[in-house]
Parts: sequence; C-alpha cells; structure tokens
Amino acid sequence: MSDPQQDLGITESKEHSPGEWYAELVQKAGLADYAPMGGFIVTRPRGYALWEGIQDHLDGWFKDTGVQNSYFPMFIPESYLEREKEIVEGFDPEVAWVTEAGNDELDERLAVRPTSESIITPFMSQWIRSHRDLPMRLNQWCSVVRWEATDTKPFFRTKEFLWQEGHTAHRDGESAWEETMLRLEQYRRLHEEVLAIPVLEGRKPEHDKFPGAETTTAVQSLMPDGKSLQAATSHYLGDGFAEAFDVTYVDEDENEHVAHTASWGLSWRALGGMVMTHSDDQGLVLPPAIAPEQVVVVPIWQEDTQEEVLDYAAELAAELDEAGLRVELDDRDGRNPGFKFNEWELNGVPLRIEIGPNEVEDEEATLVHRPDGESIVETRDEIAETVEDHLDTVYAKLYAAAEDELEENVREAESRNELLGTIGQHGGYVKTAWCGEEGCETEIKDEIAAEIVMVPLDEDEGPIDDTCAICGDDATETAYFAKSY
Amino acid sequence: MSDPQQDLGITESKEHSPGEWYAELVQKAGLADYAPMGGFIVTRPRGYALWEGIQDHLDGWFKDTGVQNSYFPMFIPESYLEREKEIVEGFDPEVAWVTEAGNDELDERLAVRPTSESIITPFMSQWIRSHRDLPMRLNQWCSVVRWEATDTKPFFRTKEFLWQEGHTAHRDGESAWEETMLRLEQYRRLHEEVLAIPVLEGRKPEHDKFPGAETTTAVQSLMPDGKSLQAATSHYLGDGFAEAFDVTYVDEDENEHVAHTASWGLSWRALGGMVMTHSDDQGLVLPPAIAPEQVVVVPIWQEDTQEEVLDYAAELAAELDEAGLRVELDDRDGRNPGFKFNEWELNGVPLRIEIGPNEVEDEEATLVHRPDGESIVETRDEIAETVEDHLDTVYAKLYAAAEDELEENVREAESRNELLGTIGQHGGYVKTAWCGEEGCETEIKDEIAAEIVMVPLDEDEGPIDDTCAICGDDATETAYFAKSY
Repeated sequence: MSDPQQDLGITESKEHSPGEWYAELVQKAGLADYAPMGGFIVTRPRGYALWEGIQDHLDGWFKDTGVQNSYFPMFIPESYLEREKEIVEGFDPEVAWVTEAGNDELDERLAVRPTSESIITPFMSQWIRSHRDLPMRLNQWCSVVRWEATDTKPFFRTKEFLWQEGHTAHRDGESAWEETMLRLEQYRRLHEEVLAIPVLEGRKPEHDKFPGAETTTAVQSLMPDGKSLQAATSHYLGDGFAEAFDVTYVDEDENEHVAHTASWGLSWRALGGMVMTHSDDQGLVLPPAIAPEQVVVVPIWQEDTQEEVLDYAAELAAELDEAGLRVELDDRDGRNPGFKFNEWELNGVPLRIEIGPNEVEDEEATLVHRPDGESIVETRDEIAETVEDHLDTVYAKLYAAAEDELEENVREAESRNELLGTIGQHGGYVKTAWCGEEGCETEIKDEIAAEIVMVPLDEDEGPIDDTCAICGDDATETAYFAKSY
Repeated sequence: MSDPQQDLGITESKEHSPGEWYAELVQKAGLADYAPMGGFIVTRPRGYALWEGIQDHLDGWFKDTGVQNSYFPMFIPESYLEREKEIVEGFDPEVAWVTEAGNDELDERLAVRPTSESIITPFMSQWIRSHRDLPMRLNQWCSVVRWEATDTKPFFRTKEFLWQEGHTAHRDGESAWEETMLRLEQYRRLHEEVLAIPVLEGRKPEHDKFPGAETTTAVQSLMPDGKSLQAATSHYLGDGFAEAFDVTYVDEDENEHVAHTASWGLSWRALGGMVMTHSDDQGLVLPPAIAPEQVVVVPIWQEDTQEEVLDYAAELAAELDEAGLRVELDDRDGRNPGFKFNEWELNGVPLRIEIGPNEVEDEEATLVHRPDGESIVETRDEIAETVEDHLDTVYAKLYAAAEDELEENVREAESRNELLGTIGQHGGYVKTAWCGEEGCETEIKDEIAAEIVMVPLDEDEGPIDDTCAICGDDATETAYFAKSY
C-alpha cells in the first residue's frame, strides 16, 4: 500500500478480459491473494468482512427457523466415508488424505472433510431416539477441501473453501422435503435481498445429483460473462443416508421408523458471484446490505474553508453513525479528493457524500451513487433518512440491472444446432425440450462445454416441446443449458 | 433424549471423582461427544453456543481495537514450516501431514496448521511496504491440529481444537510489546467479566516459551481439582519471525526497517475451564453473560389455576424478552415442575422464575439462583430490572467463590520438601524462589508432575527469597509451581 496511486487503477477490462479483470480486482481491492500451493487462496480482511456479512444474515435466518450450530471434526476416517457407497464414489477422487501424524503412519487414513454427511449422520443416529428429538437441525460454518485440478479462481474455484453445511433429520419425507425447500428459499432470499442478484431455482438432472441424494436443488445466477454460477445447493436425501447410518426413531405408535434427512450448503462462491456481477473497471461495487462501509463522507476544503467544512462533515458523519449506518469520514490530509474518490470507488462504497464550502453555506450535501456516478444534491435536514432512501435506490439499481441481464439471457432452442448457436453467440441460459438421457447432454458438453445446469423444480411441469431438441426422441422435461462455473 | 428422566442425573461426584464427573457432565448436558478417532470430539449445539458467546465478546473487543478478521489456508507447505527453525522444532512431532490428494502422492507434504505464523508472516511481508501499513493486526477464528498422544478431555485436551489466532506487525518492539499486553488484558477481561473466573497473569519461563518467541505471556486459572489451566497466551515475538520471513517496511526516514511482531490466541479451553469451575453435581452452572438462556420461567399449575398461571407467566416472559434478556418459558404439558427444575439445572440456566397461583394472586414472582438455590420472592413491578439485578448477583456469587478458591490456593514454600509437600497436599499454586535453571523444575516434575506455570510479568520483580528453594543456588526470580492441564 506504499504506492497507492499506482495500485488504484484496474488495468483490465470487465467487458474484454473478464477473467483477468476479476483476478486483478480481487487482488487490488484487497479481497484475496493466491497462496503458495496451487488451488488455495488467502482471504484478506476486506474479503473476509464480506463473508462475515453473508454469515450474519444467513445465520440469523437459520436460527430463527430452528437451526442449531455445532462443530464436527475436520477429519473423517476412511471407513466412515465408505459406509455410504455413493458418497465415497462421488468424492473419492477429490479427497485429501492425512496419512502421517505425530511422526507415525496412521493405521487408517483420515479424509479432510469434503462434506460432512458421513461423520454427522452417525452421530444423529446416536442422538435421535424418539419422535420428540425430531426435527434435528444442525449446521456448521467451516472449510472443506476438494482436490479438483483446475485453475484457481478466488471464491469460484479453490481446493479449500469456506461454506456452511446444514444437516437435518425428520420424521418423514414430507418434512425433509419442506426443509429442503425452506433452505433453498433462504438461499434465494440471500441472493436477492442481500447480494442484489436474481436467481433461477431448479433441480439438478438425475445423473448430476449430489451423491446419494434423491433430489438436488440449487440456485443459479447468471454471471456477466454469460456463465451460470451455482453458489448453494439443498439436497433431499430421502431415507438413504438414514438407512446407511441407522438413523431411526420410535414414533408415537411405539414402532421404530427410519428418519428422512436433508442437507444444504452455501459457499463463498456467493461472495465471488456478487463481486463479479456488480463490479466494474473502477473497482468493487457492493450492495448496501453487505458493504462494510455503506457511506463515505469526503470533505473538500481550501485552507480558508478547512475548519467549517471539516466541522460540518464530521457532524454529518456522526449523525449517520448514530442512526446505525456504517459510515466513514475521510478527513485525511495529504490526499486530494480525486484520490479519495478513486480509492473508495475501488473499495465499492455504495454512497459517497461530498461536502465543500457550497454545501456548508446552503446546508446541503451532495450524494453520489457508486454504481453509476449519479450525483444528487439534498438538504441537510433529516440526512439519515435521506441516506437510507438513497441506499435503497442504489440497491434497486443493482438489482434491476442484474434482473434485466438475466431476463435477456434466458432463451429457447428447438434444435441441436439452435442450442449450440444460441449459447455460442450469447451465452446465458437456453431452455430446450429434453429426453432425460445423459448422452444428449454429453454431446453438447463435448461440443461447447455447456451442460444442463437445471431442470424446473416442479416435476410435473412438462417439457416445452414434444421431442428432445438433441436426439428427437420423446421429451420428458425442460432442460436449462448453460456454460457454468 | 427419549428417556430424559434417566438422563438428567449426574452420577459422578465433582468432589470425589472430578475427571469422571466432568466427562459425564459434558455429555449429559449436551456439550460434546467423543468422535470415533481418539483425541477428537464433536461439539454439540449447547457446547457450540457457549463458544459463540465467547466469540461474540472477544471478537467485538478485537474489532474495537483495530483487529481485522481474515482466513488463511488450513495447510502449510513443509518448506514454509521449516523457514523458522524453532517453529519446526517446536511443532514437528505434533503435526498431522497430508501426503495424498486427488488419488496422487503430493510432491511436498502439507502440514495441517498447528498454528499459522509460518503462513501468515510471509503474506505480511508482501502486504507491508511502508510505515503507513503498520500496525497490521490480523486474526482468524479456526481450528488447529496438534497430534498429542494423551487422553482425550473435551475442550481441555483434543487433537483438533477451536481457537482464534491473532498475528500483528508493528514498527518497533515497544508497539509489539504493547499489543502483547493489550491482548493479555482482553483475555483476563474475558475470564473475569464473562466467564466469572479470576486469573493470574504471568510469563512462561525461558525454556517453556512459544517456539521462536522472545516472551510468552499467559493467563492461568485454577481448576477445582487444584490444577492450573492455561487457556490463552500472548507472545511477544520481537523481530525474529519478521527476520525469518522478511517483514520490512520503509519508515519516514526512507530507510528500510525490520518489523516487530506479536501473536496471541485463546482456545476453547476457556470454555472447558468455565464449565469445570462453576458446575456441580446437578449439572452445568453458567455465568449470565454467556448462558444461552439467562432466565427460565416455570409456571406451576393445577387444572383450575392453569389459565391464570400460564397467562401471567407468559406475560412476564414476554416482558423480559422485550427488555433484551434471553428468556425461556417452559410451559410444556406432561412434564412436572420437579422434572423441569432438574432439566434447567442440568442446562445451567442462572435464574429460574417460579410462577404459581400464589405469585399470581400477590402479583409477585419467586426467583431462584442456580448456583446455590437461594430463593427470593420479588414484586411483579419492574421485573426486568429486578431480574437484571439478580443476574448481577448470580455473577457476583460465582466470581466471589472462584476468587476465594484462588486466594486460598496460592501458597509459598521455602524448600524443596515444602514445595513437594504443599502441592501434594493442597494442589494449587506454590510460589518459590528459583535460580532460573530448567533442571530444578525437572526435579519437581519428575517427582510430582508439577511444573513452573509462570513467573511474574514484571521482570524487575525480584525473587521472594535469596536462594533457589530447590538447589540452593542464588535465586533470580519467583516461580509459580502447579500441576497443570
């Protein structure tokens, strides 16, 4: 930070080189750095504060709906992982193994958790005896490791990532399914209300479900490069895991029943998606609900106006602080206003308030919106209320832009060629009638690396056409094809 | 939980079998369970809520004093661990190693972090260029792994444990030392104000410092079995780590200087210490500042009084809730009051409010303090204020009892035999003049497994006697001997 003038500019272009732009933005804005081991990142304070913002919102909603936090060991014995065969097949190639500890070889390898079903479910089996113990809703905030050999992209693709994983047990399938939907809804709400990102909700196709799940649901958000991002999934596990790990309970009828379970998780991909969606070539753009600083007050003075301008700005900032807004007063000497504007734009502060001699004289304040630079002069009276209104407007601008983008980028295709052409030309989502066979997806994948990111949640909803756009066989459902992260 | 009558009683005695009592308490009160791998535990919701309470307090104080949270990778390449030779020598025998991942052998072993100096300091070296970047204060809440081969004791001795680790860089030694002391002070404050546990503050002897540290300071608390518990340490690292990892900055004089660093951590041992200190044969006893439920309202009714009693109790509970107190209304049917009393005592709720027909008629409430069963009838008016006063009283009772215990158990000894005899008979701390040689500690360790847990913080404070109580040579300082966790 010793030569900040030089550090402030993002040299890459979001439009022309989105990958390089994102990598540069994440580093210049102090969100993250690359660790010495490929695939790992260091989350710096400005990045971690955003994750804490996500945690605050989501954790509150979880607790309001009966979830209890807990913490399970980061290691899972290999024999535990093997008890649910689909889990072991699904995750085995991605597992990091501890084989030596305390100068000894271990008798049994320990997996660094890729997800915790296989250590949490056996404990649920111990703790649950009666229907009165149900539903049991556990969650943990932790990191998990999946050894995928791809290029590192901070918050999008890393071998270790932060997430929350919820694991719940229920009396019956209906209750477990309601849980699955409740969490999906909370993930949608986080995206929309906090991150200002509209989402599509859907199911994964049969062949792409979470290992062992009956139904995997997810939220999909459209990234500016036309790819789909899946930041959260909610799995209905039926009674498969409960059978494998012996989670049973005695019901009011005094008979033993097998429980039904669900699991659901949101990772720091949501953070990456937010950064990528709203930010621009000047730097970060943050929705007000999650911005560590919501407002920055920048006094602009000459020597003869210094005292009155600084006093006025300080009082205004104090009033906003009192009203519960997250406000910074940037009264640094030795930095000119232009430098300060650039720095706070890089940091993504949603609203800048400029105070110069004119504002002091007219008892006003000049408010500038981060996303588009719109500048509005407002009276000084009831400034906290005024600022809250402007923050709402900033949120509305961000959401509307993302919504327009999404709406423009859901298209339909009736044939294999139209599908390939549409995704190739526009990116985004292409809806098409599909026969349900993985082979048809593979064809498209091989050709342009697009896949079926989801099918509609409602299983009764028919396909948009009678025949599969790819093979021409009878269509059974509608598939949303997209390139995806 | 299906046969709760049976589960409520603690069968072991705190006085006669403290180890077994603690293990039973932790499980019956739902704080933790033993994991399948020796040395690991599962932290259940009631235990994790206590950890969240500790986090809330400490994290707020950290942020108020310039600390920023961040997150570094859980793995550290072996070559990084080796860059500070004392770190590698100090931790090598306790490290768990990832050697295989994604079906391949790794080229370089990755340590599961035992502590993160050797991954955090190299990044500080990258991020710090100018004196304007200092002080840099980073913290992370995470788990670490130390492969110690001892019996598992939840929160006291586990191979994986939760903690926070703070890492800070400063312009000079004075600033790094002030940081070391500030954090030690916050750990003392957490123990005293939140956990209701008085502590001794001291330095570790030279031969028992954190590997690479110039000075290691710590808080010591006395456990009811006479052993000392060290739940938090704060290390002054001088410029050793900064030299090893090249943390330099350009000062106002435009010359390059080596920074000075500090690191400081508090683990879930603080949670274990709190549980062990205050709890009794009826179950948990929790200080009000950290109790997930501070007050439980238990209505006691017959059929003919049910409605009035329940209404009165519900209103009272609502009023407490409104006042910001954490309150539960236990209006469960099908559980008698005696069962409820036992259950809430097991769970450690500091204050119980009993509401029967008499209380309704007289517009009163009967308040019962958890730690000693003292029962006081109070008027219904301004009940929230009354309850807050009683919670303060409960805290004061807990703290006073722990303080008396500590004061009674700091003794002095003038000879080897008196030292051995006093610790053997009473446990607790024994102050003695010491020559500074590790050999004298080893003698005592070999005999009765007591060690020097601390020496006074103030290095100028002389020894309490002229000659070492053990070897008779000239004494240089005062040593506090104790058995320790």
